Amino acid sequence: MRRNMRITWKFLQKFSLERTRSLLMSTRPIHVLDDNVVKMSTISPPPECLFKPMNFPHKVLMGPGPSNCPPRVLGANALPLLGHLHPEFTLIMDEVKAGIKYIFQTNNEWTVCVSGSGHAAMETACLNLLEPGDTALVGINGLWGERFADMVDRQGIDVKKLQRPMGEVFTHDEIEEALKKHKPALLFLTHGESSGSTLQPLEGVGTLCHKYNCLLLVDSVAACGGVPMFMDKWGIDCLYTGAQKVLSSPPGASPISFSERAKEKIKKRATRVRSFNFDMNHLANYWGCDGEARRYHHTGPISNIYAIREGLARLAEQGLEESWKMHKQCAELLHEGLEKIGLELLVKNKSIRNPCVTAVKVPDGVDWKAVTEYAMKTYRVEIAGGLGALAGKIWRIGVMGYNCTPDNIRLVLRALEEGLKMTGYSKL
Amino acid sequence: MRRNMRITWKFLQKFSLERTRSLLMSTRPIHVLDDNVVKMSTISPPPECLFKPMNFPHKVLMGPGPSNCPPRVLGANALPLLGHLHPEFTLIMDEVKAGIKYIFQTNNEWTVCVSGSGHAAMETACLNLLEPGDTALVGINGLWGERFADMVDRQGIDVKKLQRPMGEVFTHDEIEEALKKHKPALLFLTHGESSGSTLQPLEGVGTLCHKYNCLLLVDSVAACGGVPMFMDKWGIDCLYTGAQKVLSSPPGASPISFSERAKEKIKKRATRVRSFNFDMNHLANYWGCDGEARRYHHTGPISNIYAIREGLARLAEQGLEESWKMHKQCAELLHEGLEKIGLELLVKNKSIRNPCVTAVKVPDGVDWKAVTEYAMKTYRVEIAGGLGALAGKIWRIGVMGYNCTPDNIRLVLRALEEGLKMTGYSKL
Repeated sequence: MRRNMRITWKFLQKFSLERTRSLLMSTRPIHVLDDNVVKMSTISPPPECLFKPMNFPHKVLMGPGPSNCPPRVLGANALPLLGHLHPEFTLIMDEVKAGIKYIFQTNNEWTVCVSGSGHAAMETACLNLLEPGDTALVGINGLWGERFADMVDRQGIDVKKLQRPMGEVFTHDEIEEALKKHKPALLFLTHGESSGSTLQPLEGVGTLCHKYNCLLLVDSVAACGGVPMFMDKWGIDCLYTGAQKVLSSPPGASPISFSERAKEKIKKRATRVRSFNFDMNHLANYWGCDGEARRYHHTGPISNIYAIREGLARLAEQGLEESWKMHKQCAELLHEGLEKIGLELLVKNKSIRNPCVTAVKVPDGVDWKAVTEYAMKTYRVEIAGGLGALAGKIWRIGVMGYNCTPDNIRLVLRALEEGLKMTGYSKL
Repeated sequence: MRRNMRITWKFLQKFSLERTRSLLMSTRPIHVLDDNVVKMSTISPPPECLFKPMNFPHKVLMGPGPSNCPPRVLGANALPLLGHLHPEFTLIMDEVKAGIKYIFQTNNEWTVCVSGSGHAAMETACLNLLEPGDTALVGINGLWGERFADMVDRQGIDVKKLQRPMGEVFTHDEIEEALKKHKPALLFLTHGESSGSTLQPLEGVGTLCHKYNCLLLVDSVAACGGVPMFMDKWGIDCLYTGAQKVLSSPPGASPISFSERAKEKIKKRATRVRSFNFDMNHLANYWGCDGEARRYHHTGPISNIYAIREGLARLAEQGLEESWKMHKQCAELLHEGLEKIGLELLVKNKSIRNPCVTAVKVPDGVDWKAVTEYAMKTYRVEIAGGLGALAGKIWRIGVMGYNCTPDNIRLVLRALEEGLKMTGYSKL
């Protein structure tokens, strides 16, 4: 049996140049058999695809995220690992916390990174802030409200929906009416809605929520850092964002912060948080937020923490005021350019446009996908399509962080204009 | 007010060399005020700590994990981002799947990476495979069984514990007895227990479980790739491992696989999986395991997937047989060396020693921490202490993946021997 296998093995090698090359380059003997370990004949062979190197083009990511990372962030991602509780690493965690407090404009003690994407931060908020018996009021004007409502529903917790079509935002009046009616423990709102490209006005909403004994939870994944955000002044009780948007860092670590009011609700829970990974009592300790010695909770995503630290440092050096201004200016440049080539923005009201993500209508009769494919093929520029009810009806262009430059705006406009011409669009 | 702020700002700069340097190097004007955006006076300043570069030593990580990453893995981690649904990226995901199937020796369709550390994979198994009404039987002979029992308890699901002190493993007889008694839906066992440094024999346990209509879930975070593992042949229904052990990749993406039997239990659930992030129905689709077009679920940790792909490629090139042999040989070299300097291993029975992590007793009267501090200070070598009941009583030495070389064994032995001498240990 083993002899047969040897023959098959050699036979396979003959027909696989990559495999042979890799074996020739290795310093070990080709056939290592050790009866004490295991008979070779019992092992399925390694997959051929892993013997070729990864090989893909560099792209300009102008969709709703991820955005490109600057070289300093990619460089940080390649630093050698430290232990997840080594003092050099916990110092970096402290710097990340300071950076998050800056971009959130908060002094909250419970300020950490969740190990995961924005969805993981969203679920952390859901699992910690709600428990059976609570009611959650969820503002749904795009994908993110829907996602949050789904997460709450999975916990068997009552969800009340406040709905608006994508491209619109909620007024204080309708929020207050819903707070009165449903008496929720929590209100969820999306700050920068990347599916409808709106920016929800938040000033005053915190005060409103607290008047009705409700916590305010805000998703600012596709906005924070690119637009004004004042967590403490605006009375936001829980806020999170993502690494791969304005912070221009790889996805996998997501900033989140909890107010004293939110922390108190978590501390007074009658039931355990239904996740070990996302339990803020543990995470707050691991991130050095509770004054106690850090205990091993889980192995944090060390490289992602290095990288987000550099993303935060980049933003700190630029300064929030300058970043907000750059995002505003680039968005305006983009909007003017889009209108110049005859396109119409989804959001009419300029004051509720999210500068980080712009939705623009696909003209009647134009094959939206042919245009994005042209942009990708010709310029390696990513332009995204719409989601849900707007699939096929809009394009979405992200202008965030490191990608927020007039050069990139010109590139995306050129790609879009040429792509439209290519499809025979007549209004040009 | 704004004028006052300006003065404070300049005053601060005067006393911060780093800040001043960084501002001088930037191309933007130092004071950018735009009343349309926000008044500068309302913004808390950026944290000084982010204006200094990260600066830490390279360490040899010979604890129970993370281990060091080879340059090719760190290089992959620094590759530019792709979109999480770009064809170039889903190809890489497919290669990762093929690599996981190889190291697990499985043909399971539902084979993916969970976005998170080994704990996230553990929770994914818990949340998908169990639902209210089920009983879980948890083998506890160290930290990992305890963690899993905690996760199950958080779901309000009945936990039965099968217990052994750290350093011991479970026999087939006691497993069968417990299966008969508790009629569990799931048995959890730890393959490589990093807290007690044991290796649980698994052959035959799957058959035993299936006889009692029970699924077998195995944690092989601190073993897989370094010791024989045959998921399909051994009848394991769910298996997971971590990136930062034998795969020598940064933590943040963890391989997991589900048998047809496990998949069927998930498909027949009466209740929804209590997590959006960890719902295998979504993850299987995102990882292209269900034959349908991939839908957007969450933004995968793109860089971590590049890196684990390289970690898997490295192991595929080495070959499992060779890797298992190397881990065995290096462990034996370490064990001989430890005995030569008069130390005693925690696990007496050679056949149940986990070659990836070795627990060695701290001699009476020796300050364990002084020795590990000496090793770190003098050689930048990490040697870990014990956990739980064994805290202060053992050292733990990890020999995994890229770090599994005779050179590293010699280094760790030298550091340990010198550290012991330094504390005045007399038996040497």
